[in-house]
Amino acid sequence: MGKKKFVRAITSRDEDFAQWYTDVCRKAELMDYSDAKGFIIYRPYGYALWENMKNYLDNSFKKTGHENVYMPLVIPESLFLKEAEHVEGFAPETAIITIGGNEELQERLIIRPTSEVLFCNHYAKVIESHRDLPKKYNQWCSVVRWEKTTRPFLRGSEFLWQEGHTAHATEEEARKEALDILDTYEDLGKNLLAIPFITGIKTEKEKFAGAVDTYTIEALMHDNKALQSGTTHYLGTGFAKAFDINFQDKDGKLKSVYQTSWGVSTRLIGAVIMVHGDDSGLVLPPYLAPFQVDIIPIMQHVEGVLEKAQELKKELEDLNIRVRLDDTDKSPGWKFSESEMRGTPLRIEIGPRDLENNQAVVVKRYNREKTTFIIDDIVKSIPGLLKDIHDAMYNNALKNVEENTREAIDYDTFKKIMDEEGGYIKMMWCGDEACELKVKEDTKATSRCLPFDQTPIGEECPVCKKKAKHVVYYAKAY
Amino acid sequence: MGKKKFVRAITSRDEDFAQWYTDVCRKAELMDYSDAKGFIIYRPYGYALWENMKNYLDNSFKKTGHENVYMPLVIPESLFLKEAEHVEGFAPETAIITIGGNEELQERLIIRPTSEVLFCNHYAKVIESHRDLPKKYNQWCSVVRWEKTTRPFLRGSEFLWQEGHTAHATEEEARKEALDILDTYEDLGKNLLAIPFITGIKTEKEKFAGAVDTYTIEALMHDNKALQSGTTHYLGTGFAKAFDINFQDKDGKLKSVYQTSWGVSTRLIGAVIMVHGDDSGLVLPPYLAPFQVDIIPIMQHVEGVLEKAQELKKELEDLNIRVRLDDTDKSPGWKFSESEMRGTPLRIEIGPRDLENNQAVVVKRYNREKTTFIIDDIVKSIPGLLKDIHDAMYNNALKNVEENTREAIDYDTFKKIMDEEGGYIKMMWCGDEACELKVKEDTKATSRCLPFDQTPIGEECPVCKKKAKHVVYYAKAY
Repeated sequence: MGKKKFVRAITSRDEDFAQWYTDVCRKAELMDYSDAKGFIIYRPYGYALWENMKNYLDNSFKKTGHENVYMPLVIPESLFLKEAEHVEGFAPETAIITIGGNEELQERLIIRPTSEVLFCNHYAKVIESHRDLPKKYNQWCSVVRWEKTTRPFLRGSEFLWQEGHTAHATEEEARKEALDILDTYEDLGKNLLAIPFITGIKTEKEKFAGAVDTYTIEALMHDNKALQSGTTHYLGTGFAKAFDINFQDKDGKLKSVYQTSWGVSTRLIGAVIMVHGDDSGLVLPPYLAPFQVDIIPIMQHVEGVLEKAQELKKELEDLNIRVRLDDTDKSPGWKFSESEMRGTPLRIEIGPRDLENNQAVVVKRYNREKTTFIIDDIVKSIPGLLKDIHDAMYNNALKNVEENTREAIDYDTFKKIMDEEGGYIKMMWCGDEACELKVKEDTKATSRCLPFDQTPIGEECPVCKKKAKHVVYYAKAY
Repeated sequence: MGKKKFVRAITSRDEDFAQWYTDVCRKAELMDYSDAKGFIIYRPYGYALWENMKNYLDNSFKKTGHENVYMPLVIPESLFLKEAEHVEGFAPETAIITIGGNEELQERLIIRPTSEVLFCNHYAKVIESHRDLPKKYNQWCSVVRWEKTTRPFLRGSEFLWQEGHTAHATEEEARKEALDILDTYEDLGKNLLAIPFITGIKTEKEKFAGAVDTYTIEALMHDNKALQSGTTHYLGTGFAKAFDINFQDKDGKLKSVYQTSWGVSTRLIGAVIMVHGDDSGLVLPPYLAPFQVDIIPIMQHVEGVLEKAQELKKELEDLNIRVRLDDTDKSPGWKFSESEMRGTPLRIEIGPRDLENNQAVVVKRYNREKTTFIIDDIVKSIPGLLKDIHDAMYNNALKNVEENTREAIDYDTFKKIMDEEGGYIKMMWCGDEACELKVKEDTKATSRCLPFDQTPIGEECPVCKKKAKHVVYYAKAY
């Protein structure tokens, strides 16, 4: 009964995907709303997902010579106004401190929407010679961008992220950095999130304010809409010139540095929810999951049940597996539902009858497959099961991307598919923003990226019939 | 020559301790000033110190069942005003957002100076039953408190910290939590920072705005002034009543929760600098140091030198020792000075003559002791040397506290010692704030804490001659 009530509280995905998403965010206790509109509370379970992503990335960044720093929360308005394109992009979204210590401030302070200008200002002070390069800094922090309509993890007035900012002696090295980090983000998807990202370069219209080139990782959600999940930018020398970031090169000449910036945010939590989740709640990939195994005793008052459950827990922990034993006084059915809602990859059910038969039942969350194991085999089987689940979840997601990536060589077909199926559509493009805008007006789809594989699928832009220059992935997006 | 120039740039401690401190912060590249007054930049080396403290504590917190969360950066003004004492304590220091998305906000948003009210508001929503208790949450974030006079790490308008907030079913359990965390902080001092803290309870005057009891860790700096280095608070039910944080207890009755909060901040970096540093710069305790060993090759162009240095580096890294090999084209003397400035616990010098003799020189930073080792013995000796250094640094600091803790049974003696020697003075106290205030007026010293060992050293309060109730540690403090 408990189970029914618990499960009934979630809207099904097909009925109302947006409501399903919000239900999962709240019922799985990932977040809660705060009293400040657009600002959310990251509850322990949601924050643990972010911590696991953070640890994975932080480790990757450090291995490749990046150093963490912390820049101030605030940007004096005059500093913020230094790079024109950047200002244009971010000014409408800023939150501004005007009062400090009971006094009106002489200069208003912008809460960082991103920290390019702070890093640039600092780099201008600390970079003098080619010996000081490269500088590869990263910071973990929250940023504020004022938003009218917000959704947990996907769009909010405050979100958590990492922002990398690097300065290099050559364009080649900076471009390589932007692409190397894109690889790091792809690895995160492949190895931790079980999400296959489509990667490529953004169009002029979609790129970051102040960037020369923006690269992106795009993920496809269950509702066939795309989610921009992270970006890396090659900034060229635009910021360096605005902020006078110069260095004396080996040839004795004073030159501008070449810069990059890049970031992923708690938006990735949204991606995980919408790629893997189902009508019973979250489905977490095993290496990301805060708990990889839930042990649920049945008739735990019967002698031996709880003891065996505790023994299993201990043995699994010795293998560095993250286990939770639910020995609360809730009913087993309720506990199963909770475990499903929270997306724990494996559930071990163990009761008196299992003990008699020297066995236990292991259930995979992602496909609900139940297997009865001899008890002594369970612990040693778990690492392999986790790996199988990870691989299967990745492959399922990949299959979904493949099945929902279509090509269109004429515009009517494009509109029909976008209307009926959604997903990614590959189409040729002339390179004019007008055609990109027309697609958006007609279908609400936007260009997601120019994939690195630019093998043409036609010769003309189906929208304007002019000569095509690029292959583009279009999709409706969050 | 390089060495002289480098070292000459620091003021000596005895000449001007405040200037020495600032010099070390900047020359060791721990921080830089930003364009927003009172907001500093944590440079990689300074941030690495904080990360090491953070990892140590985070691990301790998690082992004892604490969970990390993230609450919003901002507090709506109406929420902030809910607990009166708390408001009184923090309102004068707040920074306030009045504009968001180009519009004047209907309700002003306070940048969190601390997050009690956010946690309380959340706890009121998620706590219903004794089954939901205890809640033991922690968060890592920055907070903003408007300050007129600021000093790197010690006092600034923004600082990094952790804030723990817990809710319990009983007073006993909450009081135990506040004391357990105090132990965790003491352990951090003992095992990572090599700092012996004096611990105890704060007087009414010095306690946290809204607390029933505040416990503190106090450290003694090289200039014989104390630094409050962290606090834990038993909050009682004051916040619970203001925010309606109630739970149904096992007996079916609705009760208020008992709460604690506690925090340490980047101020601890200041403590490390001022407890251990010397006229050549930082001196870092080995387990905290971002790099534990600097390898400095001499005449590195000579065949074999750099190869041997790299070999040592690799072998040390295999033992999980953090090593840096300085193979830049600076002179060895310059490199020695830099290594000293940055306080790396051990320096290995290796040159062609050393190689011929199958030896290398190992120098301890904290006492400059040089030892010549047979090369094959170096790697296996390092872990023991690091432990010796840690213990010696802790013991030196402890000796310094002991030598600078004095007792005063009459007030004239108190004033004389405080004027001439500084340090801690133990004195009896009647419990009246008037006497505490008089001590401060006369000597600038404040009560640091009532130590847990309350063995009386006299019967009357030397200030007012009334009956004494408490033993107090007084000191001038940062």
